[in-house]
Amino acid sequence: MTRFNKKKQSIWKVKDNQITRKKDALAAEEPLEILLRAGEEQKTLAITMRTPGNDYDLAAGFLYSEGIIHSKADFTSMTYCVDDKQQEYNSLRVQLTVDSVPHLHQFERLFLANSACGVCGTTMLDDLSERNIPAIPAGPIVEPSFITSLPDKLRQSQALFESTGGLHAAALFDLDGNLLAVREDVGRHNALDKLIGWGLLNDQLPFHNKILLVSGRASYELLQKSYVAGVPVFCAVSAPSSLAVDVAERFDITLIGFLRGNRFNVYAGIERIKSAEPALSN
Amino acid sequence: MTRFNKKKQSIWKVKDNQITRKKDALAAEEPLEILLRAGEEQKTLAITMRTPGNDYDLAAGFLYSEGIIHSKADFTSMTYCVDDKQQEYNSLRVQLTVDSVPHLHQFERLFLANSACGVCGTTMLDDLSERNIPAIPAGPIVEPSFITSLPDKLRQSQALFESTGGLHAAALFDLDGNLLAVREDVGRHNALDKLIGWGLLNDQLPFHNKILLVSGRASYELLQKSYVAGVPVFCAVSAPSSLAVDVAERFDITLIGFLRGNRFNVYAGIERIKSAEPALSN
Repeated sequence: MTRFNKKKQSIWKVKDNQITRKKDALAAEEPLEILLRAGEEQKTLAITMRTPGNDYDLAAGFLYSEGIIHSKADFTSMTYCVDDKQQEYNSLRVQLTVDSVPHLHQFERLFLANSACGVCGTTMLDDLSERNIPAIPAGPIVEPSFITSLPDKLRQSQALFESTGGLHAAALFDLDGNLLAVREDVGRHNALDKLIGWGLLNDQLPFHNKILLVSGRASYELLQKSYVAGVPVFCAVSAPSSLAVDVAERFDITLIGFLRGNRFNVYAGIERIKSAEPALSN
Repeated sequence: MTRFNKKKQSIWKVKDNQITRKKDALAAEEPLEILLRAGEEQKTLAITMRTPGNDYDLAAGFLYSEGIIHSKADFTSMTYCVDDKQQEYNSLRVQLTVDSVPHLHQFERLFLANSACGVCGTTMLDDLSERNIPAIPAGPIVEPSFITSLPDKLRQSQALFESTGGLHAAALFDLDGNLLAVREDVGRHNALDKLIGWGLLNDQLPFHNKILLVSGRASYELLQKSYVAGVPVFCAVSAPSSLAVDVAERFDITLIGFLRGNRFNVYAGIERIKSAEPALSN
């Protein structure tokens, strides 16, 4: 079991035909089981592969972004299971205030008898609409130079990435460009869940008037989670997927991709980007 | 619904304070529902977010790497559901030859009453051992220059990545350095599942004496899948996780990471790398 977020390992470095033995640091990856308890009833909700650390944030953010809990009042405790010494830090029990353990929407379909075919991007957006998440407010309006200043700030704070090169990050900034929180994980969803869980546990939700930056690509699930957390401006260092853009358009989120150096692409919500010059087209 | 693997979109390109309207290509992302049928019984096995294209490969590879099917003889047909025009290409029915629909190991724990805590990296490796997957043979032994030649070959074949910048790739090479197959997807697991499915549907499994290259990082799940497919040498352009290294060590897989330019790191299985010079240590 790896309790820590990185692990030392002897590796071989190969350059041309020369092989050298070195010590290296790896990003730790271990399963985390999230157990829901309501009264005496207990169910395993999910097992996710994650980098140990900020596990309470991860569980809180996962439950919040999936709509299982809506506030801190929806659970009374979160504790590591300690029945088994070896697995002490890989199972987290969340005691809910409701009477019975709810089902997680995204898993409900698994192993259920299902006569009709039926899933597509559009129906997924419709499902998201039906969760009655408050609309994202119109603001803020930000300067391009503000946006392009963010990746350097993230990199400076990504200590674990620096030493392992193997982690996704999700970072939250205020409108003065201050880094409010950053969370890292081998899984991109986990990094964002940890950040949202930090928000929930520290009374920082919704993330209105905040800017989110993720180190990799923008997928449907990341946009969905950030929408639930109320993020108006979502920035990714790499490319968005088609369905990520669909979520951003439908729910009035500004989606920025390929944020590198002094440039970036805006895929939706251009109205939050201040332009000193009139927009050109070609 | 997006039937195609990319989607044209009007975006705004921002450089300094100048905003320009451009056409851009996005990597398509849509859900794929995999339905298992056995006799008249039908269950939804999984819904995965994927880039449309090579869906039969994806379903076959997913079922194979998760241990639901073990050969082409385990299913008689794979067909898109066409009950609903809009969703025509997002649901795939796999007709199994067994009498009843099996359960997928990794999902069995979800929503099951579970009194004891119990999951950790070590138990996951033990579970994998119990699947009785044939051992990976000792060979091949390859030159460092052979390994460093692979990323360029992958890039040249990654047409969709070139146009969208938003895709993971998994590629298979023979010992002469020929690219046998490459599959791309917004999801890294899907890219590898598609490649393994290609192998199953084209009688190319196990992938003994083959070299696998993935465009991103090496996680536990990728190593697990490649082990099931019999891959002796797993190369990643980026970092491996700690548990990926554990899988490689336990099951005699050569794991290479940070494969860039004329260098790479070897995390396990150094005996498959030919060295012209004696190994040094410092």
